[in-house]
Amino acid sequence: MSDIQHKIKILRQLMDQKQYDFYLTPSTDAHNNEYLPKAWQRRPWISDFTGSAGEALVGHKEAHLWTDGRYFLQAETELDSSIYQLQKQQGYISEFENWLEIHAYGKTLAIDPTTLSIKRGQTINALMHKLRGKCVFDKSNLIDEVRRLCNESTDLPHGKAFLQTLQFSGKETQVKLREIRNKLNEHRVDALVISVLDEIAWLLNIRGHDIEFNPLLISYVIVSEAHCQLFVDETKLDDHIKQNLISHGVEILPYEDFYDALKHLNVRVWIDANTANYAILQCLNREASPYFAQSPIVLMKACKNIVEIDGSKLAHKKDAIAMIEFIYWLENNWQQGVDELSAQQKLLEFRQKQPHFKGASFDTISGFASNGAIIHYRSSKKTSKIIDDSNLYLLDSGGQYLEGTTDITRVFHLGIPMPLHKHYYTLVLKGHLALQNMSFPKGTKGEQLDSLARQPLWQEQLNYGHGTGHGVGSFLCVHEGPQRISPAFSNQSLEPGMIVSNEPGIYFPNRFGIRIENLCFVKKLKEQAHHECGEFYAFEDLTLVPYARNLIAIELLTHNEIRQINSYHLRVEKEIMPMISNEKIKTWLGNQLKPL
Amino acid sequence: MSDIQHKIKILRQLMDQKQYDFYLTPSTDAHNNEYLPKAWQRRPWISDFTGSAGEALVGHKEAHLWTDGRYFLQAETELDSSIYQLQKQQGYISEFENWLEIHAYGKTLAIDPTTLSIKRGQTINALMHKLRGKCVFDKSNLIDEVRRLCNESTDLPHGKAFLQTLQFSGKETQVKLREIRNKLNEHRVDALVISVLDEIAWLLNIRGHDIEFNPLLISYVIVSEAHCQLFVDETKLDDHIKQNLISHGVEILPYEDFYDALKHLNVRVWIDANTANYAILQCLNREASPYFAQSPIVLMKACKNIVEIDGSKLAHKKDAIAMIEFIYWLENNWQQGVDELSAQQKLLEFRQKQPHFKGASFDTISGFASNGAIIHYRSSKKTSKIIDDSNLYLLDSGGQYLEGTTDITRVFHLGIPMPLHKHYYTLVLKGHLALQNMSFPKGTKGEQLDSLARQPLWQEQLNYGHGTGHGVGSFLCVHEGPQRISPAFSNQSLEPGMIVSNEPGIYFPNRFGIRIENLCFVKKLKEQAHHECGEFYAFEDLTLVPYARNLIAIELLTHNEIRQINSYHLRVEKEIMPMISNEKIKTWLGNQLKPL
Repeated sequence: MSDIQHKIKILRQLMDQKQYDFYLTPSTDAHNNEYLPKAWQRRPWISDFTGSAGEALVGHKEAHLWTDGRYFLQAETELDSSIYQLQKQQGYISEFENWLEIHAYGKTLAIDPTTLSIKRGQTINALMHKLRGKCVFDKSNLIDEVRRLCNESTDLPHGKAFLQTLQFSGKETQVKLREIRNKLNEHRVDALVISVLDEIAWLLNIRGHDIEFNPLLISYVIVSEAHCQLFVDETKLDDHIKQNLISHGVEILPYEDFYDALKHLNVRVWIDANTANYAILQCLNREASPYFAQSPIVLMKACKNIVEIDGSKLAHKKDAIAMIEFIYWLENNWQQGVDELSAQQKLLEFRQKQPHFKGASFDTISGFASNGAIIHYRSSKKTSKIIDDSNLYLLDSGGQYLEGTTDITRVFHLGIPMPLHKHYYTLVLKGHLALQNMSFPKGTKGEQLDSLARQPLWQEQLNYGHGTGHGVGSFLCVHEGPQRISPAFSNQSLEPGMIVSNEPGIYFPNRFGIRIENLCFVKKLKEQAHHECGEFYAFEDLTLVPYARNLIAIELLTHNEIRQINSYHLRVEKEIMPMISNEKIKTWLGNQLKPL
Repeated sequence: MSDIQHKIKILRQLMDQKQYDFYLTPSTDAHNNEYLPKAWQRRPWISDFTGSAGEALVGHKEAHLWTDGRYFLQAETELDSSIYQLQKQQGYISEFENWLEIHAYGKTLAIDPTTLSIKRGQTINALMHKLRGKCVFDKSNLIDEVRRLCNESTDLPHGKAFLQTLQFSGKETQVKLREIRNKLNEHRVDALVISVLDEIAWLLNIRGHDIEFNPLLISYVIVSEAHCQLFVDETKLDDHIKQNLISHGVEILPYEDFYDALKHLNVRVWIDANTANYAILQCLNREASPYFAQSPIVLMKACKNIVEIDGSKLAHKKDAIAMIEFIYWLENNWQQGVDELSAQQKLLEFRQKQPHFKGASFDTISGFASNGAIIHYRSSKKTSKIIDDSNLYLLDSGGQYLEGTTDITRVFHLGIPMPLHKHYYTLVLKGHLALQNMSFPKGTKGEQLDSLARQPLWQEQLNYGHGTGHGVGSFLCVHEGPQRISPAFSNQSLEPGMIVSNEPGIYFPNRFGIRIENLCFVKKLKEQAHHECGEFYAFEDLTLVPYARNLIAIELLTHNEIRQINSYHLRVEKEIMPMISNEKIKTWLGNQLKPL
């Protein structure tokens, strides 16, 4: 009996004891994390499927795993098909509910309420009622019980927390708390429950080591007019941090006490039903009344203050040096034999030389030739290709610095590119430049701008299957809402201080992929007094790394586009060149930056 | 006592008798018409405000009129401020409900349920309940009673109906009915109630003379598997039409019998709650159950068949001849003294020379200089300016032909334009060309394309306060949903066969306005076999009238844009030139069409 068969057998025994027909294991955890600590990576553990999105449902005779198109191949490889049936979703939205409609009449479905949002929990609960079945929200997670029975650890990480000082955060916790409390008053709410870790990190100006790629600390917070309670494993806080938090009026309580504390909130409580887990709603007592709305921190955190923007500029300069050193190194060393994994390791080493570097901001995508065409590719020993001068190399990576978070994609050709490489690179570049150059009126949403980056591809009946831009945190998560630039409807206009990526691409399966990505921030333009069309905003690039000169088909560019590339390269010359000391790199860089 | 004071006095007496605190008069009628027959123009009658959008609320001591920014000046001029307080709305969405929240606690509000949609009726009803007041849906319209007491006619129009033969409609009523019935089966619904007049005209291939600019017949239809009942004033139908309708299985019943017929529908009934009036819902009996969804006709009607598209092409050729004859005439006659009204009359005469012309498709916007800057301008004897060579002249007009509906805007300068005229004309033209030239993947919605037309203006912090494109009917309404190209969220992708306008503009109050408008239709592109990005669509221009050559600042255009204008003008040369017989006009037109 294989490992997975053994695990499923035990799970079914537990389900038997509790009289559950189905047990659902979603992808996320109690804090709606994108990256999960190992202790909460339950769905991979119970299914062997390691993709970022997927839900496992185990019944007594059957088991299913839902995932989307990005992961069909991977899921087919990883799943034991004698146990799991792969359920292929059309889009990114779970189709588990549709399956329930047909197969769960009169059944009992159990879910750990901490592993799904209130909104989702309410939907599933209502559906099971409609089906004359039952949805049991069972806080004793069955997967964890199986793990304990298999003698596997379910311990949470013990990383130490540290302060994000005023020099980097730009705003004291006390001030942020005042702003939150004003929001509570404005909305006539007594308390705010915060379970999303980057919201807590932002509010309390603390960072942690609990989550890979994201400098977060596992914790909960409840803010009211009189109190700010932080629920956290106290051993992660040294005296210095404790003193700091206490000086801002923060009370430190055991992590485990959070749900008990909820039970005693007899007031109107602000909860973000899209991110707060269902157990939070369950724990509210009858006297409490929930006020469901987006957390007030979401927008405050998304609109960076001037210190954060300046920090991000500095972080991007350091990151540009590392990238430029890496590109120079790659061009001069590939003939010694460099593969995808060693290249990404080398890039990490260049980043590590930079002060205040705290690690990668996400799992690097280092894909040569056909591997570059896999949008969510992660190189491994099995797949890593040697990088040579025969094809394109796509590198999407980022760093966490105390000053900010970076994310950049560049594509390289180490020899003489084919005309079609240049053709498609230039189409992608034209879309990237169109968005980069855009001014737009206050109130504009991402879906209005998305097509500007796709237009040159659309003209050749080409497209890419991902959004054009995602929000980015300030030494926080590399994927941050609520802003985005995508064809999908969003309810959020682009506001000054927001950081977004600009990353059109094109992917030819089994051949190569192209993506060009800069981060930029939204800024106000000076108003034109003689017009009456209101305020306008524009993007300013944070990323300052040259585009691939040898991949630009100049004949496809307009004069304005050429001018735009030249002035971008002039910024690199002015802002990055002086920070590079190696003369050889300086000379090389100078050549890259010459006007087209 | 003025007329309006007298009317309000009588209305208040009637309200007294019925114990109503407030009486609401919305803008629309029982068929959700955009243009109303005089009999249903109640809000203008009771308020003196003649704008297209506005709601009048009369209380015992107060009266209010809500309208949006387009009409503030007009409303201030037209309203008697001793009676009506003008309530200025921020956007196009009524703020009447917000006012109720504050002022209507415990009150009784009365509304004629035929004058608002089911959705709106439900909202207002729920709100009045929440406010512990009452909403009385009183079918005996109080404004009509006042009119009768004032000896004013409330008679409906008596225009004769006529057939839209297969040659123009491209699809027999029988076939359309079969398709509708298939939809009913698919959705497990027994009957469909149709109250929107252009849906009825489309379904039954009939047209009428009841509404100005729209060739519609006032009527209702109920379709079920076994029946298709048309409720209409029978005197409008001659024997030929009756025979035709009966041959397709249509039963003809008195218009007045519609609501009674509803009362006997003991089945599941498909109703479009956004367009059907609230009285329809009220008349359903307890056995009937409403199925609320967009009418299945909306999309069928929007996606024109090949006969309708070919018809539209022909209608636009005839319209192009009329426009070209007009422009030639204007250029050669303005020195004799032409004003806005005489110009628009002359254009109508040129259109009237074309076969199958059935009248203007909307109220012409003929605005010289500062009048062109008023987006919804209608020239009158009071405002009509003499057109000369000192400024720009904006002309937005359209025709109804049996083959299709046209709508075109051109801007002229009869002398030597100022550089700034050329500058802004060219910015608007660049946006117009960008949209005209676009290919886009299946599934793309209008809000994704809207910014392409604004981009050149946004770069100079300019914008226009209207959508970029509206749908257009096939010898039906010049404004037709569900498609549109606008910044606002729409739930409708652009589909092959849809006709939309492409009309960016720019308006400088008190100086001049510019708008360039063509109609175009959505078509499938031939699939690129070697790509895998799915189906792509593009626009094809229907309108074939030259742009204003003397207003183009060629130095602002890219090579591609110049090529695009030249190839558009080449189409005019090929398709329109041969249809013009006058040699002088041919020579003049040839000069307009020379490559830039």
